[in-house]
Amino acid sequence: MRATQYEGNKTFSVLEKEITEPQPSEVRIKVAYVGVCGTDVHIYHGMMDKRVSMPETIGHEMSGVIDAVGAGVTDFSVGEKVVVRPLDDRKVKASDKGFNHICEELKFIGIDSPGAMQQYWNVPAFTLHKLKETTDLKLAALIEPLSVAAHDVRLSGLVEGETAVVLGGGPIGLLVAMVAKETGAQVIISEVNPKRIAKAKELGFDAVSPIDIDLIAYVKEKTDGRLADVVFEVAGVQPALDVMTELAGIRGRIVMVAIHGEKKPVDLFKFFWKELKLIGARVYEKEDYEKSIQLITANELPFEEMITDVQPLSNIQQVFENIDNNPDGLKVLMDCQL
Amino acid sequence: MRATQYEGNKTFSVLEKEITEPQPSEVRIKVAYVGVCGTDVHIYHGMMDKRVSMPETIGHEMSGVIDAVGAGVTDFSVGEKVVVRPLDDRKVKASDKGFNHICEELKFIGIDSPGAMQQYWNVPAFTLHKLKETTDLKLAALIEPLSVAAHDVRLSGLVEGETAVVLGGGPIGLLVAMVAKETGAQVIISEVNPKRIAKAKELGFDAVSPIDIDLIAYVKEKTDGRLADVVFEVAGVQPALDVMTELAGIRGRIVMVAIHGEKKPVDLFKFFWKELKLIGARVYEKEDYEKSIQLITANELPFEEMITDVQPLSNIQQVFENIDNNPDGLKVLMDCQL
Repeated sequence: MRATQYEGNKTFSVLEKEITEPQPSEVRIKVAYVGVCGTDVHIYHGMMDKRVSMPETIGHEMSGVIDAVGAGVTDFSVGEKVVVRPLDDRKVKASDKGFNHICEELKFIGIDSPGAMQQYWNVPAFTLHKLKETTDLKLAALIEPLSVAAHDVRLSGLVEGETAVVLGGGPIGLLVAMVAKETGAQVIISEVNPKRIAKAKELGFDAVSPIDIDLIAYVKEKTDGRLADVVFEVAGVQPALDVMTELAGIRGRIVMVAIHGEKKPVDLFKFFWKELKLIGARVYEKEDYEKSIQLITANELPFEEMITDVQPLSNIQQVFENIDNNPDGLKVLMDCQL
Repeated sequence: MRATQYEGNKTFSVLEKEITEPQPSEVRIKVAYVGVCGTDVHIYHGMMDKRVSMPETIGHEMSGVIDAVGAGVTDFSVGEKVVVRPLDDRKVKASDKGFNHICEELKFIGIDSPGAMQQYWNVPAFTLHKLKETTDLKLAALIEPLSVAAHDVRLSGLVEGETAVVLGGGPIGLLVAMVAKETGAQVIISEVNPKRIAKAKELGFDAVSPIDIDLIAYVKEKTDGRLADVVFEVAGVQPALDVMTELAGIRGRIVMVAIHGEKKPVDLFKFFWKELKLIGARVYEKEDYEKSIQLITANELPFEEMITDVQPLSNIQQVFENIDNNPDGLKVLMDCQL
């Protein structure tokens, strides 16, 4: 089979490997599509070399079909369409208080152990979610990032009739916006890249640039002065942190989706004054995957538009180089069947 | 009657004034005791001269007895013991979403309008809460700050069996600790002032100095590795902001009680990684006053110990000067009956 490996130094190799048998409690998946996550790009840039043991097959946004089942696997059969929830929580402890998805000793499959950027992938059966026979396998590669969005929106407590502002209109921002809109909320996207603004508008969103307009006045006007009930911080930059506490109205909730690698100035007075909440949100739980599978299978949201390129797996080096050169692109998939 | 006025420039005057009749919908209270709040000390220091129209009678932590009722007041009678919830929310708007206690046009009585540091005080009847005949009026002057604590603990969602760490062992920190302990939580107070640590220990608390010990290791050990379920940030200093995100365990809640006048560095990565929540909490709502009245009337917590000085109202200048010179003191009351 064809497999790829991150070798360090911005280099992927493509190689032929033996297909191996699934161990007890594992299944072997014939991988259909793998999406490239921002985290994969970080790995490519060498930012996670301390965590990733090289050479390593990476990738965790995937869809596929069960190809073989190991001993003791009774809930899954060959031929079933599946996605992997790539969280290995087998070292969960009492002090994790039941929050297995973010347990202290969590291993993220595809970063801490081999991932999906290969034609066949063996994974523990407990990581699997079944798809419908009708679920499109290309769209299904979006289930993992869509589950991030579903988790963010669920933790925000957003309900119908509320207003959500999404700071950042990249892939995760757009998925958050889709899920937020699907709850019946009014959604406003703030993004600085004109091509991404145009894309968000194409997808039917109210998308504006905080450089061109007074975002706070805009949101105030759109909400009769209430301001945002929920702000999703997906941009990861200081101006977003500065504006988030201004955009949130009384008792507003701010969901921290972005990863801020260092301490950043935050207006804590505004948290006190308006009784704001900041809600950290990381990965997803089982129910977020179920929600996301349901949305992808129903296919009533503009998911197709999220996929801006599909390339054969063997083009992996070119794929990562292209992503660096194309900040306007959204989700790039690799077709592992080719 | 005797009244006091803040004149600016760290100066209070004591003067004789006419007792005035309550207007329609108002009552006149014969003030028993007034506590000195940190905010009153800020006013004394001139920090709020832009907001306070001088000369002005300040003060809002009080207890008293109804002395006269204005036209249209039917729920209150002369002779009843009362406290004032000093929030004038008459300019509430739809955009305040029903959160009257922090509405945008809120006027705080005793800061934005005349306060309780006088022998008789006219206030709108809607601000009143009745006490029991048995409620001690001296302790009742603690109801306002205790309601702040009750609000903080209620918004934290703290429940029996959880662990709360209170950063800062001043008056509000100790009251938060008392209410937290009363819910059945394990409570740890972190404080740097040795006299305040000694006081907290006297009151039966587990109180430690983060200078003398490794606070994170201490909390870890006391919780079998779970760390804090709730952290109350009452200290208002950068080291407290630095440690709060370390002390909170998975899905821990951090309540922002302290007022941070400027933007401060916060470890947002920890919010993401452990799915922490930051909860802003300001003043109180009706139910917090009811809870606090019940606690003060039951008098089963060491409230007496919180009152470190009682002075006649006419000593107001000395009272504020003493507070500046005695960082170890807790709550100072002025007796308006003398």
